[in-house]
Amino acid sequence: MQVRELVERIIAACNLPPLEKTCDRLIAGEWEREVTGVATTFMATIDVIRQAIAQRANLIITHEPTYFTHLDQTEWLQDDPVYQLKQKLITENQINIWRFHDHMHFTQPDLIYFGLNQELGWETYRLPEEKHCYQIPPTTVEALSAFFKDKLDIKTIQIIGKPETTVERVGILVGGGSLGLGSEAMPMTLMKKENLDVIVCGEILEWTLAAYARDAAQLGLNKALIILGHNRSEEVGMNYLKTWLEPLLPGVPIQFVEAGEPFAYL
Amino acid sequence: MQVRELVERIIAACNLPPLEKTCDRLIAGEWEREVTGVATTFMATIDVIRQAIAQRANLIITHEPTYFTHLDQTEWLQDDPVYQLKQKLITENQINIWRFHDHMHFTQPDLIYFGLNQELGWETYRLPEEKHCYQIPPTTVEALSAFFKDKLDIKTIQIIGKPETTVERVGILVGGGSLGLGSEAMPMTLMKKENLDVIVCGEILEWTLAAYARDAAQLGLNKALIILGHNRSEEVGMNYLKTWLEPLLPGVPIQFVEAGEPFAYL
Repeated sequence: MQVRELVERIIAACNLPPLEKTCDRLIAGEWEREVTGVATTFMATIDVIRQAIAQRANLIITHEPTYFTHLDQTEWLQDDPVYQLKQKLITENQINIWRFHDHMHFTQPDLIYFGLNQELGWETYRLPEEKHCYQIPPTTVEALSAFFKDKLDIKTIQIIGKPETTVERVGILVGGGSLGLGSEAMPMTLMKKENLDVIVCGEILEWTLAAYARDAAQLGLNKALIILGHNRSEEVGMNYLKTWLEPLLPGVPIQFVEAGEPFAYL
Repeated sequence: MQVRELVERIIAACNLPPLEKTCDRLIAGEWEREVTGVATTFMATIDVIRQAIAQRANLIITHEPTYFTHLDQTEWLQDDPVYQLKQKLITENQINIWRFHDHMHFTQPDLIYFGLNQELGWETYRLPEEKHCYQIPPTTVEALSAFFKDKLDIKTIQIIGKPETTVERVGILVGGGSLGLGSEAMPMTLMKKENLDVIVCGEILEWTLAAYARDAAQLGLNKALIILGHNRSEEVGMNYLKTWLEPLLPGVPIQFVEAGEPFAYL
């Protein structure tokens, strides 16, 4: 199967009207190449590309950008040594990279959240009116952080608020969703509307949701944030994608290659 | 001295043409109130407001927003309990809050960077062509992280790259500056242009500068990030502001109230 047919099958399975604007496109490679194997990943980092090469997977399906900006623009990178060496690795090994971001999130259900939910086992806790909010058995921020560290293989978690805060109404905003998807206010509006005790989130900025949750905690309100980061909150969905792709692509070897958390803590 | 005269003195001392668009405005209180004392801070959190009240400082000069969005909009917050309780605290204690952000950064030299530089003692290391880049005696990412932890009172630092990487060309992008000030590419373009080994930064997103530095490190290039966060990279500048204000405001008690790092690590 060539890259084009494979991607067309995936897009068809998403069952969406064509997206007028999307970052989902062939980032590297050629539509007419025969696919030797698929590697799903959160991000096609250098190490992920090397692993795909070693495992003879010449099509990387990545959720996030390969070239360091939302739209994978490369004009500004032409003289950049990091870009040039990455290009060389990709070209010499005839690697193809297809971005699968918007379609994954717009599919019903959102494939990233679905994969995360499967891992958490929280389906029965979901609030009917808001798809990413849950009523869980009462626990603490500290215990809930330990749960996420265990489920998502996280060494260090940032929190805002008090570890001993009791929480039962939980919202999850993965990836860049916790930045508000174009509205700085959105995550806070959600927290208020659904009377959430805690939001478990991906990316964070210190002057928006973080500041709100901190003020709420300092006021003695029962509020906190548990910050997983972008990679840790979404990579589990790219692992699940392997399972979702298998019936679509019979005979094509598919594997998940973990990009991993980018940060170390000193 | 009333709030208005005090702020007018500060603006005049910045020696700038009037800013057409700015987030610097009276966020709470009244222009005609007599100032009992000034508290400078990174952010007027609940705890900072309480400390200002306890110390009889009724004018808080804050660098970052009070109401959780870049422009301190409050229409969306009218029914929000966090906002209502914060407003109550401010109103009942007749606290005035003035935002001093854009003017601080546009003043020559940038007052936030100036305060940071004073703390670091790096003035002689500054590269002539780029104002926030330095050539320091060779050290490692680990040792440089320890230096910043000590200088800026940071418990935990996130890094990207290898702790043992030797670095001597250092860029600093404080606060939101490491997001690129409207250009996702800017911090990476700077890193390439100035051949920086490491950028010491404030806010970070995982798909831009973080991804670039990670790829560079995985390629074996001598690159790394040391991530201080927004508060830790700028709060030292708000401490310095106290010294800058003193000759402008004779007779007015001025103190620095630390907002502190928002995150705890589990």
